[in-house]
Amino acid sequence: MRTNADLILSGRYLLTMDREQRIIEEGAVAIAGETILAVGQAADLLARYPEARVIAEPHGLIMPGLVNVHTHAPMSLFRGLADDLPLMEWLHQYIFPIEATLTSDLVYQGSLLSIAEMIKSGTTSFCDMYLFAGDVARAAAECGIRAWVGEVLYDFPSPNYGALENGFAYTRELFDRYRNHSLITITVDPHAVYTCSPDLLTRLARLAEEEDALYVIHCAENGEEVRTCRERYGRSPVEHLESLGLLGPNVVADHCVMLTNNEIDLLARREVKVAHCPESNLKLASGIAPVVQMLEAGINVGIGTDGSASNNDVDMFTEMSTAAKIHKVDRLDPTVMSASLTLQAATIGGARVLGAERMIGSLEAGKKADCIVLDLDQPHLCPMYNPISHLVYAARGGDVIHSVIGGRVVMEHRRLRTLDERTVLDQAAEIGVRFRRGSNGG
Amino acid sequence: MRTNADLILSGRYLLTMDREQRIIEEGAVAIAGETILAVGQAADLLARYPEARVIAEPHGLIMPGLVNVHTHAPMSLFRGLADDLPLMEWLHQYIFPIEATLTSDLVYQGSLLSIAEMIKSGTTSFCDMYLFAGDVARAAAECGIRAWVGEVLYDFPSPNYGALENGFAYTRELFDRYRNHSLITITVDPHAVYTCSPDLLTRLARLAEEEDALYVIHCAENGEEVRTCRERYGRSPVEHLESLGLLGPNVVADHCVMLTNNEIDLLARREVKVAHCPESNLKLASGIAPVVQMLEAGINVGIGTDGSASNNDVDMFTEMSTAAKIHKVDRLDPTVMSASLTLQAATIGGARVLGAERMIGSLEAGKKADCIVLDLDQPHLCPMYNPISHLVYAARGGDVIHSVIGGRVVMEHRRLRTLDERTVLDQAAEIGVRFRRGSNGG
Repeated sequence: MRTNADLILSGRYLLTMDREQRIIEEGAVAIAGETILAVGQAADLLARYPEARVIAEPHGLIMPGLVNVHTHAPMSLFRGLADDLPLMEWLHQYIFPIEATLTSDLVYQGSLLSIAEMIKSGTTSFCDMYLFAGDVARAAAECGIRAWVGEVLYDFPSPNYGALENGFAYTRELFDRYRNHSLITITVDPHAVYTCSPDLLTRLARLAEEEDALYVIHCAENGEEVRTCRERYGRSPVEHLESLGLLGPNVVADHCVMLTNNEIDLLARREVKVAHCPESNLKLASGIAPVVQMLEAGINVGIGTDGSASNNDVDMFTEMSTAAKIHKVDRLDPTVMSASLTLQAATIGGARVLGAERMIGSLEAGKKADCIVLDLDQPHLCPMYNPISHLVYAARGGDVIHSVIGGRVVMEHRRLRTLDERTVLDQAAEIGVRFRRGSNGG
Repeated sequence: MRTNADLILSGRYLLTMDREQRIIEEGAVAIAGETILAVGQAADLLARYPEARVIAEPHGLIMPGLVNVHTHAPMSLFRGLADDLPLMEWLHQYIFPIEATLTSDLVYQGSLLSIAEMIKSGTTSFCDMYLFAGDVARAAAECGIRAWVGEVLYDFPSPNYGALENGFAYTRELFDRYRNHSLITITVDPHAVYTCSPDLLTRLARLAEEEDALYVIHCAENGEEVRTCRERYGRSPVEHLESLGLLGPNVVADHCVMLTNNEIDLLARREVKVAHCPESNLKLASGIAPVVQMLEAGINVGIGTDGSASNNDVDMFTEMSTAAKIHKVDRLDPTVMSASLTLQAATIGGARVLGAERMIGSLEAGKKADCIVLDLDQPHLCPMYNPISHLVYAARGGDVIHSVIGGRVVMEHRRLRTLDERTVLDQAAEIGVRFRRGSNGG
């Protein structure tokens, strides 16, 4: 049994996000290898593990890293390329044409860029659906960030794998490559009910079952999707998935904006997990997901940023702030979606969505050491009455100064340690110049 | 005629926010004293004014400082003291009791704290309504930030001036003290129609007229206010103010969440200005102001953060992001409240709300030199297709590295130059400890 710690993080507050939501003043976390050895009073842990390297932040707040349950990391390359447009014009005139020109290398570079932003804003785990998913996974593994990664599949040819059958082969290869990887988990990602035939949806469900993998799908994102699905199948997206027998505990339904009360009950009964992406839903004018009702029904809801083309960032702190506020006005009730519920959704709730609540989402002995440290010594975080309120309503991604994932320090004093930020920014800028020329028809 | 420049700021982009919304690549602004001498190509200005001190940021974006048209700066001291509560419980159990214990010094300290946060997040002008307004003004003048400041008046005794008549005397004294001050403008601030009698509202309008001052009032913030006003006067807040003959071009109506189309037309005809505070309106579950309709009707709408007790910050960047997104979902139309319209509201639009569009709000020769520089060399601002999109949808207050107000460098490389941040934070922390004891009944 290992009893030496490699690393101790200490700070003014340690938020465990455990079942009791313990907040330890003058707290610390002791880490051995990739695992949390203990949390407790800093003085105790420092005495118990005198050999450990110590990162001490007297003004610091230590908490579990944030879990972004839905994003398309490589879309960082399209941030701000086109905004404020009708959805179909945005997709067909800007996003699809540029996605058709994507390459393995572009996806890798875009992933590095998003990962840099994610680490610098406190995210330590993300769930990604995109093309060339192998390159997303490669970037994540190299940067040492935890990721659930799936290749998006649909009825039409993909800019990555071409014909659909190759998509299955590509996905199977991903499973083989990352089986038992310490950071990367492969998922099965049908795009949506309006882009995937019932046959494809069903075949992918079988693959997910074989691989014991998550089945990640955009679901009921907006009114148009529901209308299309009703026209085609006489059922809403949720009803359609139910009729195919596909709803179950391994399903992560992204967005879930357009749900009836019956559908909420059904998702709860089937133990489907939901990825709530409030900023994207606002920006694309999709609607406000009935998250309060979903939580009341017992559904596990996590928070996601969606891609940077529709947000336009992957900062989970602003996403929390938006999530906590938007439901209050939607329900005309300032007591709903409290800071505490919101922070849970972005940490342990997100872990539950990914079926990883025994591994991440809280700081507890035996879990993976995924933790971040915020600098509280700033005007917008002072005075301090309630750390949870500050984290949801006032903190920003830029307040995160250190990040540790699986025991590895990936950012220290805001310097990224596992990727060369200068090179990533320069490469992304160059890609941007090329895309701009392309989108200008030049 | 002055032809020497004291200071030149140069950067990769200069956003003028002038009538043509010119964006100058490799741009610069030349400043003499407190005034902008010229904007243009950096190379030209550097050649024309070789004697000037130069702050050059190759990755910088230079733009007008943001204008926060509605806040209660000292409420920074109450940030996170109580959240997620019904409005009346929040006010009566937390905010009012603690406000009853306020002193001149506490307001001064709270103002310094908010001003530190405002400067560090890109605000160079703010419009403040609060108690002990003389101390807000004093803090602003000392820190070199531009401010419109009014003492809030209502029918009941004030923790500051006591009986109402003293409030008039206090306000008149403020006018006398700050007449012709380069940074501070005094306003007349009736709290709201439900806290001010028609007589008080009318007397204050006369005072505003005498002093040629803005008349700043909370108006139609939520359904409760409208109901109360209807019960008491048989009219909505807007109708009530109109019936008293008080609506005019010098009126700044804060919030304006609950407006009918007729009221929007009336406000437009009367040239009333509106302060839109989306995050506070969401957090307090007040509603979503019909800003799209107001802008269509030709009303000048600025953006405000409201106080930090109901937001919980004074970061105008996140406020812009929320403003741009929330109206899209409210109208189910992704094309409304574009990044461009939103940025206008936070700069030149805010200046118009304060009747100061000839002085601030854009970077143009002859205007006051109120400008900020953002560092674009960051993962969340790369690549760059459209600076305006990034400013509204991706930038954060923490991206602002330099701030100049009236030609004076108030922040350089994120170090505040006109206030001692360490002392301000320490004092605020101490006050927080005292308040926490008080609010715990200890």
